[in-house]
Amino acid sequence: MTLRDLCPALANKAYFNYGGQGPLPDPALEAIIASWRTIQELGPFSLAVWPFVERETTRVRDALAGLCGVAPHRLALTENVTSGCVLPLWGLPWQQGDVLLISDCEHPGVVAACRELARRERLQLATLPVQQLCRSTPAALLPDAVLASLDQHLSANTRLVVLSHLLWNTGAVMPIKAVAERLRDHPRQPWLLVDAAQSMGSMPVAEAAAAADIYAFTGHKWCCGPEGLGGVALSERLLEQASPTLMGWRSLRHEADAGSPWHRDARRFEVATSCLPLCSGLATSLELLAAEGSPEARLAGIRAASGQLWQGLQAIAGIHTVLSEPPTAGLVSFALQSAESSGLDAGCPPGSTPGQGLTAKHAAVVRQLGERNIWIRQLDDPESLRACTHITTTSAEIDQFLAALTEAV
Amino acid sequence: MTLRDLCPALANKAYFNYGGQGPLPDPALEAIIASWRTIQELGPFSLAVWPFVERETTRVRDALAGLCGVAPHRLALTENVTSGCVLPLWGLPWQQGDVLLISDCEHPGVVAACRELARRERLQLATLPVQQLCRSTPAALLPDAVLASLDQHLSANTRLVVLSHLLWNTGAVMPIKAVAERLRDHPRQPWLLVDAAQSMGSMPVAEAAAAADIYAFTGHKWCCGPEGLGGVALSERLLEQASPTLMGWRSLRHEADAGSPWHRDARRFEVATSCLPLCSGLATSLELLAAEGSPEARLAGIRAASGQLWQGLQAIAGIHTVLSEPPTAGLVSFALQSAESSGLDAGCPPGSTPGQGLTAKHAAVVRQLGERNIWIRQLDDPESLRACTHITTTSAEIDQFLAALTEAV
Repeated sequence: MTLRDLCPALANKAYFNYGGQGPLPDPALEAIIASWRTIQELGPFSLAVWPFVERETTRVRDALAGLCGVAPHRLALTENVTSGCVLPLWGLPWQQGDVLLISDCEHPGVVAACRELARRERLQLATLPVQQLCRSTPAALLPDAVLASLDQHLSANTRLVVLSHLLWNTGAVMPIKAVAERLRDHPRQPWLLVDAAQSMGSMPVAEAAAAADIYAFTGHKWCCGPEGLGGVALSERLLEQASPTLMGWRSLRHEADAGSPWHRDARRFEVATSCLPLCSGLATSLELLAAEGSPEARLAGIRAASGQLWQGLQAIAGIHTVLSEPPTAGLVSFALQSAESSGLDAGCPPGSTPGQGLTAKHAAVVRQLGERNIWIRQLDDPESLRACTHITTTSAEIDQFLAALTEAV
Repeated sequence: MTLRDLCPALANKAYFNYGGQGPLPDPALEAIIASWRTIQELGPFSLAVWPFVERETTRVRDALAGLCGVAPHRLALTENVTSGCVLPLWGLPWQQGDVLLISDCEHPGVVAACRELARRERLQLATLPVQQLCRSTPAALLPDAVLASLDQHLSANTRLVVLSHLLWNTGAVMPIKAVAERLRDHPRQPWLLVDAAQSMGSMPVAEAAAAADIYAFTGHKWCCGPEGLGGVALSERLLEQASPTLMGWRSLRHEADAGSPWHRDARRFEVATSCLPLCSGLATSLELLAAEGSPEARLAGIRAASGQLWQGLQAIAGIHTVLSEPPTAGLVSFALQSAESSGLDAGCPPGSTPGQGLTAKHAAVVRQLGERNIWIRQLDDPESLRACTHITTTSAEIDQFLAALTEAV
């Protein structure tokens, strides 16, 4: 059986929202249930259950650390991507006036957290423009273009750079390792926070994860694990410099002693009780993914599908893709011709802005496709629609989507 | 079928660790599984699945808010007790020199978080002694004794009081509503943070929860829900005064806009993706508990069992209970006669402190009982053993425990 056959979510629809949430394969759900049953049999709170809890935690920590190319002591388990991005930030030694340089393609949750951090610690915010580069630069030249933009926007006070590995809105891949190297030459040696929500599970991440200070991801998107469990790979210097902010007994080296030092390793950013069975589920999903091929081989499959989808979009009148070439990974963003790009917006009700009109049109497309059990999503910035392909995506599904989209626009 | 019959964890052991983790009834696990299957059928990420997600979230939020006697907008869902205690603290308007008055019976996780908060915000820490009062004061007089201790330890700069509702170590109940009233008369009107890990699900909490500023609990102990989901009831003034610190798209009123204001309601303290099926599980567990009787009726059952256990301990030579009367709720703490209390510690190896000797003896008792499938736990402060009774505890189980303990000491 292929991974696709093991996913009930894929049996009754054409699914293109892997970047929102991946399907949960049956064996992962079964592993979750078995984990709960074992906990009930041995515990739930007993000396007999701790070895099982430790084993399942270690199993998923080791698997995630392996994918990230880091030692397990650098890997903290978190509830979601946002926690992994934000928790390590609050305990860093900020100085008033430090600049947070945030790309213009980051997720609103992370940006909002940085804004609040800046407000309280009196830091400055700056924007690293990459969105327009994604649109206008061929993929082969994009790394250099991003580095040039970085050079232009770094200042003497830059203390943190926030950049996703695989941009959730344009679908372009950022040169994380090269960015990390560039930051090491900067006098302030800014920390590098990488939102890996879209890269983890969809492409090889070891090089980037090992180079970043904070490489935060979730298990419930491209890894096809359960919602509510993710992780973050942390650099050695971050582990030395950052105190935990949300902390509990799991952060403490001696959990019964409030005066205990923090764990030296990444566990200092773990908090308190979380849902152990999710560890069993994610570990199983990661094993199923590995059985489908290496990260490189899987990316090739993902690209073949996203390439087919991107090519098909070129043939539909009234649609333009955000990227001018087939994407490097599995995210394909596109938009209806808008007033801005076509010079016309006949569908706009009087008094509304062209933007609102396009948003409404995109929402209508999502609904119309959904009625035919084809699921994509809408994005606000840039105003667009997004269809994702995974190794589970079939060529027939893509054709079905393209045909339905052609009818809808 | 009674709740006990629905809990596989209780079928193969004599279980007294409800204060660590409660058993998960089969219907709750089935609800979790059904929730995951529904998400796969409708989504996992689609317009079709959102109404289900919203319904299950609302169902558990409303049930928890109802138990807390607060409107649902005051109830935030959290991953665990610690998150509920600590997250709202970081965003409060502290002033250098403010005093955090923390009882000497709080959980190390919360105390460690307060210490770190104090370090960063330059606050002072002070201790509210209640542990000795629990030992020496009859239950009927304990509320007044705690209030007298509070009066004695409040200072002009006290800005926060941290006090558990049901103390996890001594098992005594604290007069939270009266404490809240006393704090309202204080010129600084200190915030009241209540760790409700042991009270929620084991006793009526509405009066205390509605009076506190932060009333934080978990679903996986006395509520018999799954691990990884809890909540916190927040006062109206806290919702006005506190900014979120760990925040994500769920904190934002407009989730696609990083410049959006926070939710006005308690959702500002929710972060990002969490495990939705746990909501279905906890809601089911709460319904099963409610079917067993009102919180008052259930507490009566819990007290009958803890009273039997406490009485039985009085008859065992070499054991003393921490409380000098049967407990008000379901936590029974007791200790072997130690050097401190008996003036002798014959079992201590040369060079060790009496305390270490007692700790080792307690650990040996936990192991010995565990070998007979009877599970209690050990506590460090005060050095003691703890056996909990719930409405699922049988008289025969208690007799089995008392007989095994008599043999072990």
